[in-house]
Amino acid sequence: MIGIFDSGIGGLTVVKAIMENLFGYDIIYFGDTARTPYGTKSSETVKKYALENTEFLLSKGAKIVVIACNTASSVATESVAENFDIPIFEVITPAVELSINTSHKACIGIIGTRATIKSGIYEKKIKEMNPHARVYSKACPLLVPLVEEGWLEKPETKMIVKKYLHPLKVRQIDTLILGCTHYPLLKNIIQKKIGKKVNVIDSSIAVASNVRAFLEKHQEVDALLGKKGRCGFFVSDVTDQFEKTATSMFKRDIHLEHVKI
Amino acid sequence: MIGIFDSGIGGLTVVKAIMENLFGYDIIYFGDTARTPYGTKSSETVKKYALENTEFLLSKGAKIVVIACNTASSVATESVAENFDIPIFEVITPAVELSINTSHKACIGIIGTRATIKSGIYEKKIKEMNPHARVYSKACPLLVPLVEEGWLEKPETKMIVKKYLHPLKVRQIDTLILGCTHYPLLKNIIQKKIGKKVNVIDSSIAVASNVRAFLEKHQEVDALLGKKGRCGFFVSDVTDQFEKTATSMFKRDIHLEHVKI
Repeated sequence: MIGIFDSGIGGLTVVKAIMENLFGYDIIYFGDTARTPYGTKSSETVKKYALENTEFLLSKGAKIVVIACNTASSVATESVAENFDIPIFEVITPAVELSINTSHKACIGIIGTRATIKSGIYEKKIKEMNPHARVYSKACPLLVPLVEEGWLEKPETKMIVKKYLHPLKVRQIDTLILGCTHYPLLKNIIQKKIGKKVNVIDSSIAVASNVRAFLEKHQEVDALLGKKGRCGFFVSDVTDQFEKTATSMFKRDIHLEHVKI
Repeated sequence: MIGIFDSGIGGLTVVKAIMENLFGYDIIYFGDTARTPYGTKSSETVKKYALENTEFLLSKGAKIVVIACNTASSVATESVAENFDIPIFEVITPAVELSINTSHKACIGIIGTRATIKSGIYEKKIKEMNPHARVYSKACPLLVPLVEEGWLEKPETKMIVKKYLHPLKVRQIDTLILGCTHYPLLKNIIQKKIGKKVNVIDSSIAVASNVRAFLEKHQEVDALLGKKGRCGFFVSDVTDQFEKTATSMFKRDIHLEHVKI
């Protein structure tokens, strides 16, 4: 199975992108809804949670794991890779590669949670690939609660998005990385507020292509993965909101299993 | 010591009210910042956290405990009282009593997190004391993240508060209970949007009077409490935001000690 975890519901955008890119692969998802959000917590705490989540996915039969959470990807990927002997994917590198390959002016904006932006990981990775790139980042801590509330089209959400994007707009970025797996749900507003000429990069789509490319190259890993279209959703806390969002995203009833972690 | 816990920083409004009502009493505070917020989690999870937090405060010498979190007060007070043999205070009953005693029309509004409102506890307690009272409640899940971001005066915050209060305003309530310890930080905006004739009840002030009245009546408990003006702040995760908010609320540097829980 392909194991995927996130701090909550944001990682479902990654599940959806992987379902569309790798049709019929068995997927197991863990949303750490009891301990969400990760974006406001310290690195040590997020590392501990990421290790526990990976162990849970492995116990359920995952053969590769996607860290579908930018905060955990930025602070915990190394720890997870050191502790477990399976392929680990994170959502940052694929988005960075795509941004470098498609940006004409190498003038790139990044939005994310406070923890992701503070870690400076996008900036560091972009500069490693293109030392001349100009990179501007902006933490947008209110977007996750707005998405979790389902306020996807409200005027207040539009105003808050506009306010957050303003400093990036004045820098005339040509590419914007959505550095949080919740943000694709606000992609329309974000595209409108940053301007239609800016290429908005959705890390969930980028990581899904990356996993597919890896599996095409590593047939021995691909052979370990079930392809019966099964999908299991586990959460550390069952809330109404999670079921509502999952059901509306996948346009079918989603059964959530509760696990203690 | 007086032990006080909350899911995060909101309970500091209770610490402040207790400091002002019970001058010089030793206080120990625990903010469960690693597992915040509680308001979106299930009752079982919140109960487990409340028991762990109380145990921590007791291990540090607390002789009475104030549950300075509406969500935990509404779902976990009974569990905590059953498991520990010390006086336990919660923030709901004092606010309910104050609202019943001061409302002329017995037409009372309540705002809180989704978990608090869903529990129906305010409504139940108000009806027990006055079966003729009309009670209207509204969950305001975005207010906690707005407060935690320090967006106390932003136009978006004002719009969101106005939108949340609208259904209560049309009911012509004469009393509004702030059913979340974060909300006193937005009291000015709330008072303005609900109307200046509405009596806004701050549960942190109500619980502080309640604790004082209890100690005046129970000298044997009062004798157990230190009165050297010492104050210890513990958190399960140290974040910049927490230190900033604590420092600005108390207008002095606050030292936060990190504990694993």
